[in-house]
Amino acid sequence: MLSEFRGGSKRACSRLMSVVENEPDAATAILDELYPLMGRAFRIGITGPPGAGKSTLVEKLGRECRNRGRTVGIVAVDPTSPFSGGALLGDRVRMPSLFTDPGVFIRSMATRGGVGGLAARTKEVCDVLDAFGRDCIIIETVGVGQVELDIAGAAHSTVVVLVPESGDGIQTMKAGLMEIGDLFCVNKSDRDGADRLVMEIETMVEMKARTNGWVPPVVKTVATTGLGVSALLDRLDAHKTHLEASGAMIERKRESTRSEIVELTEEWLRRDVWRRPDVTDRLADLVQQVLDGDTTPYRAAEAILKDVLAAS
Amino acid sequence: MLSEFRGGSKRACSRLMSVVENEPDAATAILDELYPLMGRAFRIGITGPPGAGKSTLVEKLGRECRNRGRTVGIVAVDPTSPFSGGALLGDRVRMPSLFTDPGVFIRSMATRGGVGGLAARTKEVCDVLDAFGRDCIIIETVGVGQVELDIAGAAHSTVVVLVPESGDGIQTMKAGLMEIGDLFCVNKSDRDGADRLVMEIETMVEMKARTNGWVPPVVKTVATTGLGVSALLDRLDAHKTHLEASGAMIERKRESTRSEIVELTEEWLRRDVWRRPDVTDRLADLVQQVLDGDTTPYRAAEAILKDVLAAS
Repeated sequence: MLSEFRGGSKRACSRLMSVVENEPDAATAILDELYPLMGRAFRIGITGPPGAGKSTLVEKLGRECRNRGRTVGIVAVDPTSPFSGGALLGDRVRMPSLFTDPGVFIRSMATRGGVGGLAARTKEVCDVLDAFGRDCIIIETVGVGQVELDIAGAAHSTVVVLVPESGDGIQTMKAGLMEIGDLFCVNKSDRDGADRLVMEIETMVEMKARTNGWVPPVVKTVATTGLGVSALLDRLDAHKTHLEASGAMIERKRESTRSEIVELTEEWLRRDVWRRPDVTDRLADLVQQVLDGDTTPYRAAEAILKDVLAAS
Repeated sequence: MLSEFRGGSKRACSRLMSVVENEPDAATAILDELYPLMGRAFRIGITGPPGAGKSTLVEKLGRECRNRGRTVGIVAVDPTSPFSGGALLGDRVRMPSLFTDPGVFIRSMATRGGVGGLAARTKEVCDVLDAFGRDCIIIETVGVGQVELDIAGAAHSTVVVLVPESGDGIQTMKAGLMEIGDLFCVNKSDRDGADRLVMEIETMVEMKARTNGWVPPVVKTVATTGLGVSALLDRLDAHKTHLEASGAMIERKRESTRSEIVELTEEWLRRDVWRRPDVTDRLADLVQQVLDGDTTPYRAAEAILKDVLAAS
């Protein structure tokens, strides 16, 4: 499967992604093998409230990348996205060029496993697409609650998409979305209130202190007609250049490498400890001792810890 | 502080609870010390949707316990409960007998730290009340989402409180609440639809297969007047007797001891590993090696694991 993957087989890529999503133990060997191939793709996160037109924007942005000769991977975490098969069939019919273009790979993420698990797998699915050689990876997520924060960690550039008519619900959401936006996109900008929304966002952006020298631009788009999409990609490219020139890219890489090692270590610690028959025997023993009044749960946990941790 | 606690000082009890809530490291020593005193209190969970009259029911149930000569601890996890100071002052004024009775200890839980953390601390606060010698501990939680499941794990008997007018929102909630109810309480049962709700619950209860021989009874109450509260406590006592006679109590104790040891071990594993200077040095080293292309995050995590885990 790996040699087919290296040969550019989309089918092999798809199958590796399924392994990464569903089989944690097998996933490790694959990701380790693919690791030297990773690190070249530019990862773009597209987030925002439901109804902001994210899917249409992703489609147009994908096409614009293709026009510029870049290969594209699309990962849809939003279960209502047409990329996930969650919306009307009509949406899929409207974007046949993407679905049949060999330069585009579309993957939707299953939503089981909770928010944290979902985001974790998303990063790994992007890693596979990265190793597959995609120039651009576009991650579409619905911006409600915690998800967008996790995704901001997985993307190099996060685009927050808002629309003029979003109204009050969005006001309360904005605070969190403002934090993570490297770029802002006012979509459906042919509607009333677009300029006011642009000004509002610009004011909020200015109020926020920045240490890295990047002022998030606000781009107006009409995704349905493609208006502004080319300008959006120009700004994304400018952000990428900024990240590389300022050293932020390598700093980010260092930080994400660190947290990846920490998370893997903690996950495997838990797994390995409870897989050891001597530890499970000891646990059963200690449970009985607690019930007999001979020890306490606190001392029992300490005893297991002493057994499993090597001396420093 | 511990000798004052043993002497029955409510102030010392209050301070120990604060330590347990806020200082994990100090908490362990205290809980370990108190452990032999725990295990005598009967823990009753009261849950249900907002507006079901849970706080008033808790108050009346607390009084009924006092009438029967039992000491009472009340732990309010619901932030809107008058016990938490979250409701109108009038609510507190209506229940002065509880607030001034030396046989009653009332504690409200802070809501920071997320759902999981909240429930974990709740168990430990109940442990302190248990060691303090309370006969009955009543835990009030609002039954929305995940909280009630965690609380069901902390209580011996879980009472699900519903009201006739709860309507559609409750319908969807019922499935989850039906699972955890050892007893059902139809409160405000002087209102229209009470008998229909009782029948609905009885039907759902019958449909559910039981392995432990306990059929959850449905009790009608009017908490504001106290109607049915004595019958409710009778049924709770019957449930306690059933748990003890059937062996379910000891089985539950075994299961909760086991998961307590597992959780403590995992928490301390994480804590101890990243506190070791040799491990953090190694981590910094490995991060650099990954950035230099000399290893991968997967091999790095394996290397740390090999360093910290003792051979079995």
